[in-house]
Amino acid sequence: MYSHKKPKEIREMISNNEIMHQTSGMCLGYAQANIVILPKDLAFDFLLFANRNPKVCPLLEVVEKGEILVNSAKGEKISEVIPKYRIFREGVLEGEYNSVTSFWEEDFVTFVIGCSFTFEAALIEEGITMKHIEEGKNVAMYQTNIACKAAGRFEGHMIVSMRPIKRKDLEKVIEITSRYPSVHGAPVHVGDPGLIGITNIEDVDYGDAVLIGEDELPVFWACGVTPQGIALSAKPRIMITHAPGHMLITDIKNSTLVK
Amino acid sequence: MYSHKKPKEIREMISNNEIMHQTSGMCLGYAQANIVILPKDLAFDFLLFANRNPKVCPLLEVVEKGEILVNSAKGEKISEVIPKYRIFREGVLEGEYNSVTSFWEEDFVTFVIGCSFTFEAALIEEGITMKHIEEGKNVAMYQTNIACKAAGRFEGHMIVSMRPIKRKDLEKVIEITSRYPSVHGAPVHVGDPGLIGITNIEDVDYGDAVLIGEDELPVFWACGVTPQGIALSAKPRIMITHAPGHMLITDIKNSTLVK
Repeated sequence: MYSHKKPKEIREMISNNEIMHQTSGMCLGYAQANIVILPKDLAFDFLLFANRNPKVCPLLEVVEKGEILVNSAKGEKISEVIPKYRIFREGVLEGEYNSVTSFWEEDFVTFVIGCSFTFEAALIEEGITMKHIEEGKNVAMYQTNIACKAAGRFEGHMIVSMRPIKRKDLEKVIEITSRYPSVHGAPVHVGDPGLIGITNIEDVDYGDAVLIGEDELPVFWACGVTPQGIALSAKPRIMITHAPGHMLITDIKNSTLVK
Repeated sequence: MYSHKKPKEIREMISNNEIMHQTSGMCLGYAQANIVILPKDLAFDFLLFANRNPKVCPLLEVVEKGEILVNSAKGEKISEVIPKYRIFREGVLEGEYNSVTSFWEEDFVTFVIGCSFTFEAALIEEGITMKHIEEGKNVAMYQTNIACKAAGRFEGHMIVSMRPIKRKDLEKVIEITSRYPSVHGAPVHVGDPGLIGITNIEDVDYGDAVLIGEDELPVFWACGVTPQGIALSAKPRIMITHAPGHMLITDIKNSTLVK
């Protein structure tokens, strides 16, 4: 029922607490985004981390001062337009909230980070099956041994999402996702999970396991969960994120993110 | 005599004060770079400025802690390998130095910024005349009315370099420079100087005027002087740059900067 609404309408319903659940499938054609909010004294290291790891942390917008978004959802308060936020203090989850207006601090910096929903939409449009969506599951995610490039206090390993892809579709899938560098881009690995430190493909670290068919290969992409995890391990005094699946619905059309 | 030396040799001569003059024409084939060094409390705003204005401020490397370069001149101390530095305090030039080791502060962040020497080399290789080089002059530079995208304390207008290009070569010149996004990339304007706020093309703001022939058009590129100027206008407590023309000679081959 929300798939054909405009982002602005949905964000208004979210601000009014009329929508407080996951945003998957809402506003087809528009990019959804991950959010990381940090105090300014950590913002340089985090921005540098994003610059050095663009596949892991593709930035759609950075707001250096105040709560008002400029590009991704023009004029909206980032503290109100997400259905569920998480607040972490010193790396520990403090709670989940439908608004973080009352927690806002003057020196907060907001990072709006691209999300793989965008390239999944492009793949589905081209007739590629996304098994986890067909099965009504969350995508399978794994911790890897691929080191991200460190930046100041931020360092750690890449978390990847995995989608089983038919061998005959592989070239097409790589080609399509390569054209979306601002939403994780081309795969970081194809084929042997062991080579990137995944010992058991059925044993997911986040999300849900999906069976890989005989005619399929596991294809791995850098995942937007990585920067949140890495930021947390630096134990910032305070950090605000969206709750998993409860994304910022932007005004950015997926089609404009094609390279 | 320095055109065919290796960057490492030249940098050693610079460290030993055996070379203290301009670096133009040294180490052909290797990228030379602009340098901006700022205290960490300004580094986030400056990095964000670079992200928002990649043509003006194309980053080759950022060093978040300490004096040691990693990518552009592996293992070298940035405080010693430039023939002449400038130190500004509160936006005012304090002096020029052959080393800034004694001024180094623990929280300094170094930005290594691409320079148009790289694309000039590519143009010359393709048979395009660089008139200012033929005439032994510095390139002509102008203040424009093109606003850069502001970031925190940093805002201002773009400074451009101008090279007269024969009409018949224009397409080729645009095509070649477009392939060098990390050293200012494609022109920002071609033709009418008045449209970008330049009232008299013979009246340069920096560098030397060059005559534009009947069969030539003035072609304008974003110039690496811009970020220094904009950083200065924010009056940082302290800021260190290279002196004009006294660049960092990097180990980065020009050919690797092609997109």
